[in-house]
Amino acid sequence: MRVTIKDIAKYCGVSSGTVDRALNNRPGIKEKTKQKVLQAAKDLKYRPDFTARSLVKGRTMTLGIVLFDLYNRSYAQLLTAVELKAREYGYFLYIALTDKDMENEKQCIEYLANHKVDGIILFSVNKGTEFEEYLHGFSIPIITIFNFLSADWEYVGIPERAAMKNGVSHIIDKGYKQFIYISPPLKYKGITNIYTQEERLQGFLEALASNDLKEAEIIRHNDYLDYLEKINFRQRERTAIICSCDLYALEVMRFLKTKGYSIPLDVGIMGFDNIDVLKYVTPALTTIEYPVEAIGDKAVESLVHKIEKGSYITKENTELSYRFIAGESI
Amino acid sequence: MRVTIKDIAKYCGVSSGTVDRALNNRPGIKEKTKQKVLQAAKDLKYRPDFTARSLVKGRTMTLGIVLFDLYNRSYAQLLTAVELKAREYGYFLYIALTDKDMENEKQCIEYLANHKVDGIILFSVNKGTEFEEYLHGFSIPIITIFNFLSADWEYVGIPERAAMKNGVSHIIDKGYKQFIYISPPLKYKGITNIYTQEERLQGFLEALASNDLKEAEIIRHNDYLDYLEKINFRQRERTAIICSCDLYALEVMRFLKTKGYSIPLDVGIMGFDNIDVLKYVTPALTTIEYPVEAIGDKAVESLVHKIEKGSYITKENTELSYRFIAGESI
Repeated sequence: MRVTIKDIAKYCGVSSGTVDRALNNRPGIKEKTKQKVLQAAKDLKYRPDFTARSLVKGRTMTLGIVLFDLYNRSYAQLLTAVELKAREYGYFLYIALTDKDMENEKQCIEYLANHKVDGIILFSVNKGTEFEEYLHGFSIPIITIFNFLSADWEYVGIPERAAMKNGVSHIIDKGYKQFIYISPPLKYKGITNIYTQEERLQGFLEALASNDLKEAEIIRHNDYLDYLEKINFRQRERTAIICSCDLYALEVMRFLKTKGYSIPLDVGIMGFDNIDVLKYVTPALTTIEYPVEAIGDKAVESLVHKIEKGSYITKENTELSYRFIAGESI
Repeated sequence: MRVTIKDIAKYCGVSSGTVDRALNNRPGIKEKTKQKVLQAAKDLKYRPDFTARSLVKGRTMTLGIVLFDLYNRSYAQLLTAVELKAREYGYFLYIALTDKDMENEKQCIEYLANHKVDGIILFSVNKGTEFEEYLHGFSIPIITIFNFLSADWEYVGIPERAAMKNGVSHIIDKGYKQFIYISPPLKYKGITNIYTQEERLQGFLEALASNDLKEAEIIRHNDYLDYLEKINFRQRERTAIICSCDLYALEVMRFLKTKGYSIPLDVGIMGFDNIDVLKYVTPALTTIEYPVEAIGDKAVESLVHKIEKGSYITKENTELSYRFIAGESI
């Protein structure tokens, strides 16, 4: 049998109202009585009934997070940070993975709404006014991360464009004049939300333009290794391969090693993300680091502030810092 | 305003009971009426009120998963599988991370119980009769994974001992006679639940015993690199370093490379887990693979069966297969 407030009241010889005051830390109760009630609750193994309480309070003390997947290390690091921070605030976390599928994402959001989460952290694969109207229809606080939707929505991320521009400028300073840019998600341009990828590409192009370099080869599909296969890197000016994520850079590096190329003597490689497994890879990958855990922390802090105090903390869209990591691969 | 069953009834000109029958797929309603109601629900953007419904049904349609963290790639792979499988069954997933802290784990479990999850998947850091009594007190279906508790609890995992014994036997066949075994979690023996690690150690020792080899050096602390630092691997018989997880093996490999050792010519290394990032590491790490996604799938299937039909499917403890992966590191 589940222990109720009435059981504690009977056990202590006080009223149910007194027990309620003690358990919910409300005034109108002597400290001694309060301690007695709390001890009794502990002894009787009382557990508050959140489902019933949430109906009264109008809150479920739960947050939802919608992510693509956990294959990219960055997302696992982000999720860990969000879970810890949410629980610190007393909120529990629902996780929903979309696998970058637009319909799936909608189902995830509806599921979360149906389970009455108090707020949602959204790394969106959808975009556009229709989708935004759809989101507004839920009347649930939402914070977007990484993939920007519009100024209508709170956002936490990094200045993707400036970060990539900064990184590529470092590479240009090393004397590279030939560039290949690899970003398979760009094939979804105009279809899904690839904000971060579009910004990174713009940063790359801006760095080239600032240095009077002509446009590079830009690979927008998954067959980038086939593309590289056709190139003899020893017979052309030394080339820098800029990858929009570390995962592509690792694939490229592995491929070029099997082809017998020396990195960075024959060809240079740069990634983006600084995922934690890079430390085991040689040569060390040159990349861009950003505080992925801080993005999770900020998103939770602002969302909880909105739920409990009515306003986001991230009034201006919050963009966090980044750092160029000079490895040995370029 | 939230659309209710009454709104749909009014819209269709039927009773609330009819709408309820249509939405919950119950008999006693004509197919034509049912389709009309379902279409109306869609048009009006009706969303079922799960919180209210769960009070009636006595179910919340939620599962909880308790894991250490997501730093180990295996756990992220497992979580992805569990989330997808749970949603396939219509359940939503709460995630709670313990960071291997025993008190934290209890808090996580209480939180999940307070939120009335219908079942819990538990990768436990606690163990012992007191903890098991504590778990029984919740009267919630629980499936344990990886770290076995006792025969009282459903379990899904792999035969850790046989898997390690098999792997080490392959290494012995290659002629190695000197062994160093690295497993820092063993320092928690007798304190926390390190079932998988103890089993792996036993598998290692059994492989040695089967081959009349004397006991190896066993490192049970985090300073294993300091220990290796003192050894000149070129001045002793060729040594095999067996690591109880890939993550330790990757650290060892990185360290020995910086010391100028050639792997496997000077020293051999074997890991365990076959985490997905291994493909980017050279030389390819020799390791043991097991179906981590299948462990997640099985756990969810059995738990949902217990919740909905009263019995687990994993009546006998479910142990899945493993495979020795011959890399180039040993």
